[in-house]
Amino acid sequence: MSASVYTYLGPEGTFTEAALRSLPEAATRELIPMVSVPTTLDAVRSGAAAAALVPIENSVEGGVTITLDELATGEPLMIYREVLLPIAFALLVRPGTQLADVKTVTGHPVSQPQVRKWLAANLPDALWESAASNGDGARLVQEGRYDAAFAGEFAAATYGLEPLVSAIHDAENATTRFVLVGRPARPAVRTGADKTSVAIWLGDDHPGALLELLQEFAARGVNLVRIESRPTGQGIGRYFFSVDLEGHITDRRVASALMGLKRICPNVRFLGSYPRAGFEPTGMSPLRSGTSDEDFAVAEEWLARCQDGRA
Amino acid sequence: MSASVYTYLGPEGTFTEAALRSLPEAATRELIPMVSVPTTLDAVRSGAAAAALVPIENSVEGGVTITLDELATGEPLMIYREVLLPIAFALLVRPGTQLADVKTVTGHPVSQPQVRKWLAANLPDALWESAASNGDGARLVQEGRYDAAFAGEFAAATYGLEPLVSAIHDAENATTRFVLVGRPARPAVRTGADKTSVAIWLGDDHPGALLELLQEFAARGVNLVRIESRPTGQGIGRYFFSVDLEGHITDRRVASALMGLKRICPNVRFLGSYPRAGFEPTGMSPLRSGTSDEDFAVAEEWLARCQDGRA
Amino acid sequence: MSASVYTYLGPEGTFTEAALRSLPEAATRELIPMVSVPTTLDAVRSGAAAAALVPIENSVEGGVTITLDELATGEPLMIYREVLLPIAFALLVRPGTQLADVKTVTGHPVSQPQVRKWLAANLPDALWESAASNGDGARLVQEGRYDAAFAGEFAAATYGLEPLVSAIHDAENATTRFVLVGRPARPAVRTGADKTSVAIWLGDDHPGALLELLQEFAARGVNLVRIESRPTGQGIGRYFFSVDLEGHITDRRVASALMGLKRICPNVRFLGSYPRAGFEPTGMSPLRSGTSDEDFAVAEEWLARCQDGRA
Amino acid sequence: MSASVYTYLGPEGTFTEAALRSLPEAATRELIPMVSVPTTLDAVRSGAAAAALVPIENSVEGGVTITLDELATGEPLMIYREVLLPIAFALLVRPGTQLADVKTVTGHPVSQPQVRKWLAANLPDALWESAASNGDGARLVQEGRYDAAFAGEFAAATYGLEPLVSAIHDAENATTRFVLVGRPARPAVRTGADKTSVAIWLGDDHPGALLELLQEFAARGVNLVRIESRPTGQGIGRYFFSVDLEGHITDRRVASALMGLKRICPNVRFLGSYPRAGFEPTGMSPLRSGTSDEDFAVAEEWLARCQDGRA
Repeated sequence: MSASVYTYLGPEGTFTEAALRSLPEAATRELIPMVSVPTTLDAVRSGAAAAALVPIENSVEGGVTITLDELATGEPLMIYREVLLPIAFALLVRPGTQLADVKTVTGHPVSQPQVRKWLAANLPDALWESAASNGDGARLVQEGRYDAAFAGEFAAATYGLEPLVSAIHDAENATTRFVLVGRPARPAVRTGADKTSVAIWLGDDHPGALLELLQEFAARGVNLVRIESRPTGQGIGRYFFSVDLEGHITDRRVASALMGLKRICPNVRFLGSYPRAGFEPTGMSPLRSGTSDEDFAVAEEWLARCQDGRA
Repeated sequence: MSASVYTYLGPEGTFTEAALRSLPEAATRELIPMVSVPTTLDAVRSGAAAAALVPIENSVEGGVTITLDELATGEPLMIYREVLLPIAFALLVRPGTQLADVKTVTGHPVSQPQVRKWLAANLPDALWESAASNGDGARLVQEGRYDAAFAGEFAAATYGLEPLVSAIHDAENATTRFVLVGRPARPAVRTGADKTSVAIWLGDDHPGALLELLQEFAARGVNLVRIESRPTGQGIGRYFFSVDLEGHITDRRVASALMGLKRICPNVRFLGSYPRAGFEPTGMSPLRSGTSDEDFAVAEEWLARCQDGRA
Repeated sequence: MSASVYTYLGPEGTFTEAALRSLPEAATRELIPMVSVPTTLDAVRSGAAAAALVPIENSVEGGVTITLDELATGEPLMIYREVLLPIAFALLVRPGTQLADVKTVTGHPVSQPQVRKWLAANLPDALWESAASNGDGARLVQEGRYDAAFAGEFAAATYGLEPLVSAIHDAENATTRFVLVGRPARPAVRTGADKTSVAIWLGDDHPGALLELLQEFAARGVNLVRIESRPTGQGIGRYFFSVDLEGHITDRRVASALMGLKRICPNVRFLGSYPRAGFEPTGMSPLRSGTSDEDFAVAEEWLARCQDGRA
Repeated sequence: MSASVYTYLGPEGTFTEAALRSLPEAATRELIPMVSVPTTLDAVRSGAAAAALVPIENSVEGGVTITLDELATGEPLMIYREVLLPIAFALLVRPGTQLADVKTVTGHPVSQPQVRKWLAANLPDALWESAASNGDGARLVQEGRYDAAFAGEFAAATYGLEPLVSAIHDAENATTRFVLVGRPARPAVRTGADKTSVAIWLGDDHPGALLELLQEFAARGVNLVRIESRPTGQGIGRYFFSVDLEGHITDRRVASALMGLKRICPNVRFLGSYPRAGFEPTGMSPLRSGTSDEDFAVAEEWLARCQDGRA
């Protein structure tokens, strides 16, 4: 139990482990695979781990709903980093298996839509059954329960398998986004190319509620990077929104938009500000006129002069 | 030159004088009529007067453009009070004149539209010529240049005339609004039923610029009481906006909206926050949810906690 | 009484007459000056004239309120043409008068703000009194009542005066816009560089009503050229809006916006579509993507296919 | 191959079958279970089946992404009906199994979040492995691979199991929504309590694109019932929106909003108008003023009069 432990969504040999090992500090941490997103995160909540890496979004399948929901509604955690990992699958088999021998295939349910077309073209008659994870699927092939598993090629060695086909991905640019979360504390330092994540509940179901939410961002020129509706669990038609936006909570336009949301929404949960993976400050959207920190400071100073009779 | 002098748009016997005398402090000031709105205001700018009362809006004719333009573009002044005065005209004549004798009538150009229907019905053949003011019109009748003048009944005595017809007004509820202006200083104290006046220039002529301006108010639930476009004098199609809104510059929602405008517009001139004439705090529009001072304070405190990692 | 008569706001020698004479068809019409905007327009309403030319907007003074109000609330008329006339004043005097001799000056009240700075610089002690029109002011100088009148230089000959100073205008690019109105009929033919005028009443005074009005235009990419609030005459704070927009009522985006307004507003009066003075089709704002007539036709055809099950 | 065949997402014994059997016409159709959402829908596309029932949304887990994506991006189909089914699970076991004997449990991955809390409270040490469906999980229990399966109680008989615990659901009001889809044809008849489904792609990633989309609905008073972002598969940050709205495509306000979207978005796919399950016309949101069919007709007729000069 300590700052030296990082948990991740296991088992070994998944893309999540590969993503975690791409972080420099991973080399000096004890990396512990967990069986589910909730248990991975609970280890951080309990203090057993300093941080946890979990998948949050996939460019083919969309949001990883269990992660979105845990961060939005579970005991509070905060995002400090994100990692983008290009996703390509290998078809792992026991040594000696030929493509014609493959009658049953397995893999994580999220993987299936990413290899659907490949399966239809190359193994149209193979039966798919889901496994708890890609790593688990590989293990089940090792045990002989299935003929082949979709997983990252790096998982082959762990399970004594070999890649029969590599670089399988239905969609070009398939990417999974992972987040490194910890207990709530001061956000990551502003870099100039940052993202901020929030979960937002609308007060009532009046038609314009989502429009008003978006206008709080638009009014300050804050760009949305991602917005997903998630059911609150209180019945069909009741949602909260999981939102990523450009900028850091210490940027004045972001702070102003978040305060605006806080005023009009019954619940807003701040989920962290952190460096935007793959972006330099120079690659961010240009600021809309009037929304720089300096513009905010000038306006505040002007207001103070007006209020004091010095305008 | 002193705090004891108030100027007003003269001459004596106009509605402006009547409005000024309705203010309690007028009893202890020296009230000096001036020949035009600019000279009335210049007396304040130069320090010759402590304050000036000028008409700014009429419920029949609309804004008094010279006042709107002087406040928006002249050397800065600030509004500290407003006065509403119901307007009804008397037809003033030299003693002995009968209605059938009236061939020529005069009055201020702004008065004409307010008696147009009465004239058409009662003196369809009378010739109208404008005078520099209603008081001036009365003087011209006294001098014999015209047969009758429209003016406030209170002006009859000043000019040795008598009211031939009273309570003339084409429109029910005809009202003129006057403002008491002084040199820029700390705004009038907040009462809970206040108005704030601003002049706003749009940055460029893109189609949505006015929409964006209005959204800064709407986003904070700030109600507009009046909005008027005025030419900037730089050619057909170039405008600034003269705006009155509900609330005081120290109300958080008003302050926030003004700062928003200041950021997106090239020029915003604050023209004062002052008690709204004829309104009690209980008569104001109800605040939109999330826009009270406390809502702003709660949101600000929440943001600080998020930024510090204490959320 | 016939199609050969055009009325205009007189008297002779005003800018309105000059504007009217700039229209080619004026050469073949009998041009009759009238004493006021209402009488000028009433001649058309009664059938005594085929059309009338009246000023509607001045780049220094703003809207000509009597014209705006007559068109919006009087017996219906429609605009078929607009004329832009650059405005420069001459100081007209009786032959022999020197600048030093000028103690009193006159002119139309609307002219005064346009020469205010010139007066302050060149005749700081001269007394201004308003005349019913610039032409009337010239006549009063001819009669000896005033020393000088501001009017168009073309008026000098009519009244036996001479221009002491020419090309007086406080503002660069001072321009007055005039409209040629007739009885309601089919609008002027679409040219591709058109304007449409409407008067719009808001249903109630809820804060967002003006915002909703503007969004009907914004949603179809219709650019506003002018918007003016005018009192309805029903008390301080009650307004209608006089609006000019780019495009012709047969343009699909304009038609769609007008129908949207008609649905949400209690009253909308169509005041005409007519060629935009001084603009070629190539000089208009570029259409926003998705708002061309073809875009509307494509969308309508798609909808019909969806409704019929042919999509 | 005929109009008498309906496919559904199998296997037998799932909630989907129960939902399908709730439709009156199911009694006279041959109901064929399929192994996946794509194969269920492909049977309709190929003409082998007249219609297919598939789950589309769950009040706990959110949208069924494979269904959303198939309808939005696969060969076109259309929704003609929706079915709401309250979801409660039974824990199915082989006869004689006690709760203490349950070491392994299975079920569809979508079921897991709906029983997570129950599992944590009642079987904290049981190992979960996902099955391809709830019916499949029951079969695997029958075969002895797992000790217990979460499924609908109605599935017990099919697989020779018995319900050890009934009415398990973490969330109150857990409901799944199913849609009956067929090949594109004329939409279902308008009932007055209808829904319309569309998939919408935004043209580019400019910050306000989603706002503009929502404003097309807001401008016509069209209420959104559901909005979900789905990745387009073209990389992190590229989305389309799956939207359900109140009203029928033949309602004028809906037709107008859809045409508006069609104009501003590069792609809009109409997915059907159909009766809203569980709603009477009287239970729908009240129409916003100005958005009834009659309001549209009045506005259109007014526009025609204006264009013809008969206004």
